[in-house]
Amino acid sequence: MTGNTKTVRFGILGCAHIARKVARAIGLAPGATLGAIASRSKEKAERFAAENGFPESVRIYGSYDQVLEDADVDAVYVPLPTSLHVRWAVMAAGRKKHVLVEKPAALDVAELDLILEAVESNGVQFMDGSMWLHHPRTAHIHQLFSVPRSANSIGPIRFIRSTSTMPVTPEFLASDIRVKPELDGLGALGDLAWYCIGASLWAKGYQLPTTVTALPDVTRNSAGVILSITASLLWDQPNQTVATIHSSFLSHISIDLAICGSDGSVHLRDFIIPYQETSASFDLTFGAKFVDLHIGWNVKPEEVHVANELPQEALLVQEFSRLVAGIRDCGSQPSSKWPEISRKTQLVVDAVKKSLELGCKPVTL
Amino acid sequence: MTGNTKTVRFGILGCAHIARKVARAIGLAPGATLGAIASRSKEKAERFAAENGFPESVRIYGSYDQVLEDADVDAVYVPLPTSLHVRWAVMAAGRKKHVLVEKPAALDVAELDLILEAVESNGVQFMDGSMWLHHPRTAHIHQLFSVPRSANSIGPIRFIRSTSTMPVTPEFLASDIRVKPELDGLGALGDLAWYCIGASLWAKGYQLPTTVTALPDVTRNSAGVILSITASLLWDQPNQTVATIHSSFLSHISIDLAICGSDGSVHLRDFIIPYQETSASFDLTFGAKFVDLHIGWNVKPEEVHVANELPQEALLVQEFSRLVAGIRDCGSQPSSKWPEISRKTQLVVDAVKKSLELGCKPVTL
Repeated sequence: MTGNTKTVRFGILGCAHIARKVARAIGLAPGATLGAIASRSKEKAERFAAENGFPESVRIYGSYDQVLEDADVDAVYVPLPTSLHVRWAVMAAGRKKHVLVEKPAALDVAELDLILEAVESNGVQFMDGSMWLHHPRTAHIHQLFSVPRSANSIGPIRFIRSTSTMPVTPEFLASDIRVKPELDGLGALGDLAWYCIGASLWAKGYQLPTTVTALPDVTRNSAGVILSITASLLWDQPNQTVATIHSSFLSHISIDLAICGSDGSVHLRDFIIPYQETSASFDLTFGAKFVDLHIGWNVKPEEVHVANELPQEALLVQEFSRLVAGIRDCGSQPSSKWPEISRKTQLVVDAVKKSLELGCKPVTL
Repeated sequence: MTGNTKTVRFGILGCAHIARKVARAIGLAPGATLGAIASRSKEKAERFAAENGFPESVRIYGSYDQVLEDADVDAVYVPLPTSLHVRWAVMAAGRKKHVLVEKPAALDVAELDLILEAVESNGVQFMDGSMWLHHPRTAHIHQLFSVPRSANSIGPIRFIRSTSTMPVTPEFLASDIRVKPELDGLGALGDLAWYCIGASLWAKGYQLPTTVTALPDVTRNSAGVILSITASLLWDQPNQTVATIHSSFLSHISIDLAICGSDGSVHLRDFIIPYQETSASFDLTFGAKFVDLHIGWNVKPEEVHVANELPQEALLVQEFSRLVAGIRDCGSQPSSKWPEISRKTQLVVDAVKKSLELGCKPVTL
């Protein structure tokens, strides 16, 4: 990267809380620059820019349309409520802006397909905001799932369990957009279970599960929005694997992921947001056995540390920018990897919802 | 304890692998002595006694009946296949022997009730062999569930997840008693899920769940015995709690228990058999929050160590012996605590089995 002209210039649609984190990540990521920010009120956008110390060069707009009209914006980041994703992502793609959309990608796969058709027909890149996928720990662990089996492989995966819970305040339960049916109608299923579903698919190499079953413990608010959900995913082939997921706004923080193979297991206690920014660890256990008389174990889990120079959200921005620059400057095709990951995740979200609607019957994919 | 005459004298019915561990525990536990061992073949019992270095004073019998006829045996330990528990436990109680039975307590609650009626009418103590309940770590953690809430409480429990998996050899899958329908017809549900169900009930203060649902991923061997099972338990009142359990003979060892309340969470990675004999730990997290911008956590889990002078199986024998001595020497009544724990666990085992038979429909308790 030799100068600003080669960087990917981002415009942000809206001043959501998460936009602060992503704006900072754009500042940290090589190859990315923040070009513009918009809110429905220019005053709000100005206040947001001042509070977050944005440079003078960032254009501040009082409408999202103005970002899409800005010729010096290459890509938009869309942290708006999920119900607005389809509208703004499709419009952005129509203006040849690359689209980074916060998760959940859309309310359902039908809406996501409208977005994906728009990005495809306009030749722009799409990615959702699942940051943990970009942490080097994630790639490091994935080597342990190698097929065919290597010496370092945990063997065929039998069981995956993951949780994403986060206690919220009474004010959140009353008024946050994530529990308003007209804004984020998926509630905890979209905001939190997206991660658990994504992690289960990731562990299985993005093979879709055979069956998805919601469990009868769903909790909803008075408007019907999901506050807590438990579900299981089942893969029949080539090796039977079961994943359980639990996501809730009503429980202490738990963002836990365990993957058990026939020969070893991996456990992360902070898979969505690592405890610290610049390194993360996971527990690895290989070949555990009980010692004679079953009075102890032959091994304890080993804590494996993985360093990262940049926070995972900056790595996400860097990867997205790399793809965008390739399209813009070298005539590359958009990568289908990230849209496919989003779409498979959304398909399973839809299946959990359908299972719930069917009274927790298994849904076949 | 001043002399041998005051100790509780155990007879062991059978030379199962687990009997080696419990025989050693009887040797370690204050207040307990090994008095007799029987196998269906006297030679086998003699070999077992020699291999395990039993003292000369231990009587060696070629039939279980002889243990029951031995007037110097106060209590029997029954490590026989589950299908034989009801016969031998009832007979032992009829001979006024106190009964310590390996888990699962029985094939179903109807059989367990025959045992419990026999012990009750004969005034003898009953306990099952769930060793982990006797580890001081277990009692230590239970204080964190206090109701009404104290400063140290993790708050109302929202979510419990537990696994008990253990990979077995092809020989085990072909011929071990735990996968033979006529011997241990419950398979992994009895041998492994017993622990997860027990731990979930323990966390909920032995309140029975409202609903029990098996998940459609059950794996069976060719004889129909369960090798792998996933299920969920749901408590509606007073606070909704969901537990997921997963037990399997097909996966790397995972004996993991996590309990999440509204304000904190507890995690054990070795809840059934601690990594080491003389101390164990658990992870405790209180009041975790993401720091500003959600780029890390305010706290990491604290590892809390709990020392134990005796291994958990010796603590089990000690507690059982204390109760037996109270009945024998002081005219105390048998404690109803342990039979009730076994019975509630068995009720939930039955409900999982029933849910499976109903095609994974929820079963109301």
